[in-house]
Amino acid sequence: MCQLMGMSANVPTDALFSFTGLVERAGRTDVHRDGWGISFYQGKGSQDFRGLNAGSDCEVAQFLKTQKIKSDIVVGHIRQANVGALTLENTHPFRRELWGRYFTFAHNGQIEGIFDQLTLGRFKPVGSTDSEHIFCWLLHEIEQAFPEPPVDPKPLYDLIYRHLGKLHAQGVCNVLLTDGSVLIAYCSNRLQWITRRAPFGSALLKDIELEVDFATETTVNDVVTVIATQALTTNETWQSFEPNELMVFEQGELNYQVKATD
Amino acid sequence: MCQLMGMSANVPTDALFSFTGLVERAGRTDVHRDGWGISFYQGKGSQDFRGLNAGSDCEVAQFLKTQKIKSDIVVGHIRQANVGALTLENTHPFRRELWGRYFTFAHNGQIEGIFDQLTLGRFKPVGSTDSEHIFCWLLHEIEQAFPEPPVDPKPLYDLIYRHLGKLHAQGVCNVLLTDGSVLIAYCSNRLQWITRRAPFGSALLKDIELEVDFATETTVNDVVTVIATQALTTNETWQSFEPNELMVFEQGELNYQVKATD
Repeated sequence: MCQLMGMSANVPTDALFSFTGLVERAGRTDVHRDGWGISFYQGKGSQDFRGLNAGSDCEVAQFLKTQKIKSDIVVGHIRQANVGALTLENTHPFRRELWGRYFTFAHNGQIEGIFDQLTLGRFKPVGSTDSEHIFCWLLHEIEQAFPEPPVDPKPLYDLIYRHLGKLHAQGVCNVLLTDGSVLIAYCSNRLQWITRRAPFGSALLKDIELEVDFATETTVNDVVTVIATQALTTNETWQSFEPNELMVFEQGELNYQVKATD
Repeated sequence: MCQLMGMSANVPTDALFSFTGLVERAGRTDVHRDGWGISFYQGKGSQDFRGLNAGSDCEVAQFLKTQKIKSDIVVGHIRQANVGALTLENTHPFRRELWGRYFTFAHNGQIEGIFDQLTLGRFKPVGSTDSEHIFCWLLHEIEQAFPEPPVDPKPLYDLIYRHLGKLHAQGVCNVLLTDGSVLIAYCSNRLQWITRRAPFGSALLKDIELEVDFATETTVNDVVTVIATQALTTNETWQSFEPNELMVFEQGELNYQVKATD
């Protein structure tokens, strides 16, 4: 299994604090030492970093802990490999272009035995992970339904929800997905989130002794949502997604939500 | 205009020396200060780095000068913007997946007034550069001719040559392109290359006082080709491409060549 970390903000914000906590779990406080990767979107483009070492040992990851890269959207992943060799093409997040937008996808979980049912179209996996296979299938399904980006995105979010729900029914499929404009998070069994806004306070990381006072780092208008497999801080209240629940964050705010109805 | 740097090697090799010379030109010894990017392939996947600052000032680029990232193929670019804003989506190299391979493209030059003739298919530009437009068009043309990767790649190389030749006829179009297995270099007006093999000697960078003794860094079986817009060293003999010439490098060796015949 792996762990996910995402961020959505209404002003370019650095995800340094959350990243610092996440990479501790990449070999030090947890077992996710089989590579890591992170995409920092600024508008339609992104800076991406990845490595095959455990994030907690990796020089690139350590360097990133010194960099305040301001982003609108972040998608990060630390890997504990189950399917697919330890190669760069098997590290998350994965990237494809659709509609002239870079879609970025990271997955935590494992789906077995249904790949024959997942028809791939023009998006072909480069590596051998089930995760990249799922991503390629999902993009194909999106493009089949929406050859052009829909004016009202809700039917698109509903389609993503239904398709990830099919995987959830047969395995574990926690997902972060972005097109650079919104951050979509789907929970299969484990995902938490927190929205920080004024009045900002201090936060304490869970995995390493580090405290930040967000009041000194933000303005009163800032809204920043962080999503993680497990809460990254100890002194804040994180909310848990329900199993089979999808949320869409735009500029830091939750703007769409679908979940299983009884 | 911009500058290009590429590497092809038969063993994973760090391109640190060449990168160090290149980034000097990104604002210190030359004017290419409008962003930079580099892809280090290891097998089918890659580690990518890019930034919007001048490479010579950029902390990420400075950090990379401390990292010996071993690669089979490298594609690097420093930008002096002429078309397209200073945004991450407009920094080279560009990336798309075709045939389950990551294609990476960097361009130096400017093509004007022929975009109406360049039909785009499923590959859509995310940014606004002529370079990304060319890349998307070229991949579309490749896919139209070869829905599957050809067993004999020579007709593919010939097609790329013909298509880049059309651009060369109407502007300047120096290109580095890779699919992770070969490095394709096309010269429109300015491109040089050198193949280093045993017996290895010392090399002196042109843009900064730095010498490396490759004999201490290599084995006798290593073969490494470096391509650059302009020779990166002063004490070695670089060969110049001819205008409208394409070369394909595989595992450090030149294995295919097409040029204009009189």
